[in-house]
Amino acid sequence: MSITPFQHPYLSGLFGDEELAALFSAEADIEAMLRFEIALAEAEAALGVITGEAAGAIRSGIENAVLDHSALRDGVAKDGVIVPELVRQLRAAVTGEAAAKVHFGATSQDVIDTSLILRLKSAMGLLKSRTTQIIQLLEQLKARDAARSMMGYTRMQAAIPIKAGERIDSWLLPIKRHQQRLEQLEQHGFPLQFGGAAGTLEKLGDKGASVRAKLAEKLGLSDTPQWQSQRDYLAEIGNLVSMITGTLGKFGQDIALLAEIGDDIRMSGGGGSSAMPHKQNPVAAETLVTLARFNATQLSALHNSMVHEQERSGAAWMLEWLILPQMIMATGVSLLTAKRLMGQIEALGR
Amino acid sequence: MSITPFQHPYLSGLFGDEELAALFSAEADIEAMLRFEIALAEAEAALGVITGEAAGAIRSGIENAVLDHSALRDGVAKDGVIVPELVRQLRAAVTGEAAAKVHFGATSQDVIDTSLILRLKSAMGLLKSRTTQIIQLLEQLKARDAARSMMGYTRMQAAIPIKAGERIDSWLLPIKRHQQRLEQLEQHGFPLQFGGAAGTLEKLGDKGASVRAKLAEKLGLSDTPQWQSQRDYLAEIGNLVSMITGTLGKFGQDIALLAEIGDDIRMSGGGGSSAMPHKQNPVAAETLVTLARFNATQLSALHNSMVHEQERSGAAWMLEWLILPQMIMATGVSLLTAKRLMGQIEALGR
Amino acid sequence: MSITPFQHPYLSGLFGDEELAALFSAEADIEAMLRFEIALAEAEAALGVITGEAAGAIRSGIENAVLDHSALRDGVAKDGVIVPELVRQLRAAVTGEAAAKVHFGATSQDVIDTSLILRLKSAMGLLKSRTTQIIQLLEQLKARDAARSMMGYTRMQAAIPIKAGERIDSWLLPIKRHQQRLEQLEQHGFPLQFGGAAGTLEKLGDKGASVRAKLAEKLGLSDTPQWQSQRDYLAEIGNLVSMITGTLGKFGQDIALLAEIGDDIRMSGGGGSSAMPHKQNPVAAETLVTLARFNATQLSALHNSMVHEQERSGAAWMLEWLILPQMIMATGVSLLTAKRLMGQIEALGR
Amino acid sequence: MSITPFQHPYLSGLFGDEELAALFSAEADIEAMLRFEIALAEAEAALGVITGEAAGAIRSGIENAVLDHSALRDGVAKDGVIVPELVRQLRAAVTGEAAAKVHFGATSQDVIDTSLILRLKSAMGLLKSRTTQIIQLLEQLKARDAARSMMGYTRMQAAIPIKAGERIDSWLLPIKRHQQRLEQLEQHGFPLQFGGAAGTLEKLGDKGASVRAKLAEKLGLSDTPQWQSQRDYLAEIGNLVSMITGTLGKFGQDIALLAEIGDDIRMSGGGGSSAMPHKQNPVAAETLVTLARFNATQLSALHNSMVHEQERSGAAWMLEWLILPQMIMATGVSLLTAKRLMGQIEALGR
Repeated sequence: MSITPFQHPYLSGLFGDEELAALFSAEADIEAMLRFEIALAEAEAALGVITGEAAGAIRSGIENAVLDHSALRDGVAKDGVIVPELVRQLRAAVTGEAAAKVHFGATSQDVIDTSLILRLKSAMGLLKSRTTQIIQLLEQLKARDAARSMMGYTRMQAAIPIKAGERIDSWLLPIKRHQQRLEQLEQHGFPLQFGGAAGTLEKLGDKGASVRAKLAEKLGLSDTPQWQSQRDYLAEIGNLVSMITGTLGKFGQDIALLAEIGDDIRMSGGGGSSAMPHKQNPVAAETLVTLARFNATQLSALHNSMVHEQERSGAAWMLEWLILPQMIMATGVSLLTAKRLMGQIEALGR
Repeated sequence: MSITPFQHPYLSGLFGDEELAALFSAEADIEAMLRFEIALAEAEAALGVITGEAAGAIRSGIENAVLDHSALRDGVAKDGVIVPELVRQLRAAVTGEAAAKVHFGATSQDVIDTSLILRLKSAMGLLKSRTTQIIQLLEQLKARDAARSMMGYTRMQAAIPIKAGERIDSWLLPIKRHQQRLEQLEQHGFPLQFGGAAGTLEKLGDKGASVRAKLAEKLGLSDTPQWQSQRDYLAEIGNLVSMITGTLGKFGQDIALLAEIGDDIRMSGGGGSSAMPHKQNPVAAETLVTLARFNATQLSALHNSMVHEQERSGAAWMLEWLILPQMIMATGVSLLTAKRLMGQIEALGR
Repeated sequence: MSITPFQHPYLSGLFGDEELAALFSAEADIEAMLRFEIALAEAEAALGVITGEAAGAIRSGIENAVLDHSALRDGVAKDGVIVPELVRQLRAAVTGEAAAKVHFGATSQDVIDTSLILRLKSAMGLLKSRTTQIIQLLEQLKARDAARSMMGYTRMQAAIPIKAGERIDSWLLPIKRHQQRLEQLEQHGFPLQFGGAAGTLEKLGDKGASVRAKLAEKLGLSDTPQWQSQRDYLAEIGNLVSMITGTLGKFGQDIALLAEIGDDIRMSGGGGSSAMPHKQNPVAAETLVTLARFNATQLSALHNSMVHEQERSGAAWMLEWLILPQMIMATGVSLLTAKRLMGQIEALGR
Repeated sequence: MSITPFQHPYLSGLFGDEELAALFSAEADIEAMLRFEIALAEAEAALGVITGEAAGAIRSGIENAVLDHSALRDGVAKDGVIVPELVRQLRAAVTGEAAAKVHFGATSQDVIDTSLILRLKSAMGLLKSRTTQIIQLLEQLKARDAARSMMGYTRMQAAIPIKAGERIDSWLLPIKRHQQRLEQLEQHGFPLQFGGAAGTLEKLGDKGASVRAKLAEKLGLSDTPQWQSQRDYLAEIGNLVSMITGTLGKFGQDIALLAEIGDDIRMSGGGGSSAMPHKQNPVAAETLVTLARFNATQLSALHNSMVHEQERSGAAWMLEWLILPQMIMATGVSLLTAKRLMGQIEALGR
């Protein structure tokens, strides 16, 4: 047991997800922040807020900046966010008068939220493609085993025989609905955060809206009014990923019960025991239950975080930092684990 | 303090909502169950599963049945659900051979879930109309006070002056999004639950799907495959109502802070104090925060309930009973309270 | 499904607990509040803060007061708490100058919190005596079946045979620890709340501490400094009752699994099904799991409520009202249900 | 934002705690596991279960073992726990017949839980010493500022003036109670986990209890019957640490409100803003609120985990892994942050 099994030398064997972890690394975060600052300068240049020359100097300075990571950590310790120190370093890396134009009109939360959204966009895309795989695997399972017979259980009691296909549908149908939800999310677009100090883009005068639109376009995000204290978007994503892990948790619980009762499933590849060599523990199935309950718990904090007071809240905002990335990780791991578990089902029903 | 302030002789002054409470009363529940049983008989008659005569006898018997409520309570104590005893009483009320056809092909969960959905449909309609009112009130507030000036606060510190309209937008925009979500929910339709003993409608032979479609039509619900162990639909409703209370909680927190700091709001009608006659407590504002945190907490249980094992779960299902109606109530109360609070704002900004 | 199954015409067959419900009724609440106000007057008279005559007039007035319940409800709607209107009515019922001395030096929260504590004291005593019964029943079960053999299961897989007594210990030992925790709680005493308007008992001058001690003595509570914004005491009670339901949830889960697998238990009295007359649903066992997850969820809100801002918080305080009584009810129901379930175990092991 | 701010290149400036992180590193975990295996061999030798020679060979083999970390990770991926592969490697490192005696009579959960407990013991000691520091700092604050005057606020409204010492007491008194709880926990002892495959120590014959007692003594833990499926101990620790963060969250919320209103506190050292150089954000105060709500959320999962089915649960157990270390970290960080925040209070009241 260590701080988080999602990022752990050996527990990552069970709870690791390298693709997603890469999106939520500090490196990826900073890279997305730099992308924001460059795109901001270029959007401002496009609208005549700063000169094209300044934007060029900013891009070039930022691209060549060598960051002092230890000072960034100290900056977070002092300011609570990385941005003041990061901007200080970036300005130092930009030559001439353009330096003062780095981050012009933006605030820390714009940078940090947008970095999150850029990476959430990639992450949700990844979750969607894995969800597609799960659907395919369940459909293959159905094609192979749908007609086999198994005992139906209601309220933890044998009820009447059903077809394996009917049980598979109880896993497949909700996953298909989640897939549609992921598609709707994608179509709706991932929202840029850009509001400035108190949400009013006051430094951009009458060009606020057009700079925002241009910035959104450059970053591939949707152009929406700032949502610095309106966190429904994140609560909704939390809900969606927790529904995915919830459904996979039901799948895991079902497989664990099938494995325990033993009549209606044939599996390979369970986990070994240090005390009982004869056992085949349904580790992957259990892990799905664990991750479902993990996300179900975390979601509560995201909803508590909706009580963002005034223009911008520090307390509610930081709570999201502690919660959302782990929820996304849990979902990625759950999808990977479900895939592995499906590969272990040699026959469902008989 | 009593068991639940939502149903309480005097705390209902603060937490009561008669319209919603009526939808979640035992009477309304039973009425919806009877509606299900009558519609089921008629749908089965329409498809030739039972005779039209039998359906007529069932309707007439059920409509005239005098239920023994004490026996219903005992039935719940024995069976865990009301339906076996309710069906027994209904069969006793139906004359002739039709009696045996009452509840034909259905299971307890079909009746109970459909009764819930019928009432959720009404409840969500009510919440939607109240949300519309809130939007109107916020737009009126904006029309009146948008141009007034107030201090913008970020991270609990005075930042820069903003316009009152900008603060109002942080309440209004998410409510508008919730309104759209409520509309989508409505368009998507409220799903009938009808699967029979283990979800397979096995007693209806090849007429299962057509009886289900007819039954859905008669009840004004959408025709979907049974979802006895697929609870994403309820998790999604829980998420939606908790987002509504979350946004109103942010509104309440903001008003309470405005009232505490005192410079940027003028209010009437706060609560009196038993010890300090000079005080005007922002009770409505506080209540909104309370209800936001209440729903944020409850939502976690609905997501845990997604781990419905096998064909039907008793444990996960009953957890929904303890959670979802209170979440809906909390949302109704929150909307009523927000409306009252808006009426107390004499001026926002200065 | 209705607002709360804990207070419901027929679901109370499953989730009802008349003894506890009586403690958390509005009547019991008001009765305890009146007890507080009488004891306060008498304590103040004992210390010379008011005259003995005034205290006598207050007792007599309060004992004979006929309350206007509709006005109390309106008072809550207006003030957010019942106390200002209640005190107004009590003063009207007290003759002469003593009227002004009703509630002297106290604040709403003193009355409401102390009423809660008085009833929690009774409730925890009740839970303790039921816990004792559960221990006895488990010890009887052990005396009868300990030597029988059953399959031990780890990670949802048959492991090695164990004795039934070993499984029973996994239920019994934690219940014994909870019993000790309940005893410690009792020994520690249930704390009076008495701080006045902002916690300082400023109206009592140098007699604050001695009035508080006398008042505590009269009410059978422990004399502690006011804890108006220090809610660890309630969080701790929430934790304790949730540990009780957690352990009984494990017991319920085990029985449901034993009943499902079927080899190692013989039971009577399960619930009937509306669709499958042959089934015996382990309703009581499932209910225990439901109640465990219910309390596990609620506890989070009590801990969130510890963030009581400043001298007294309305928002965090009211959240307790929505949460704690239901947690206590869930625990009472869980103990009653566990008792019933134990009566259904005809043989554990074979 | 990254997977967890508790373990992060730069967010650790805010959420880092090197001392605690060291206790929850993979290295510390493995070290404690090896300590368990050595002590187990020596306890078994002391009771004549294995020879002293074998115990010596085991100690020497384990102390000199060079672990293959990549294989450990693969082992976790395969078995769900590290122990089967770890024991395999340890046996390979032990010469002769003693190899087969490594881990004799124990199961994976014994090793993993005991490693957790050993490190929890250190962690709770650390938290206790930090709590002592907080008490000292609050008492110093009280010694300095107790007599100063400040406005008392109830329900987010100015009430009546109080002394700063009264506000300080609302932080100090609960922390003192938590300190006592930490002491009780310590006196009660940290429980060894040792039950073998299904909790019965069946391989040790009639020596189970005496080996367990000896093992507990060697590890400095308390000797209790195995608690493989009885998780109240962990729920209680979770509750205790969450009460600590809850109280410090109240402190943080109060300081943030004091800083926002601005009349009654003078502070230094707030965080800078990237958009508003004039601001001093009360970052440390906000962080305390964040951590309180984080732990309040997590606790729910620990209580859900009490529903450990049968002899040992994989799903409920792994959920603890995802939750408990982060709760401890959050508490450590909260205490460090509170200390830093206290250093920033130049004057409370006026």
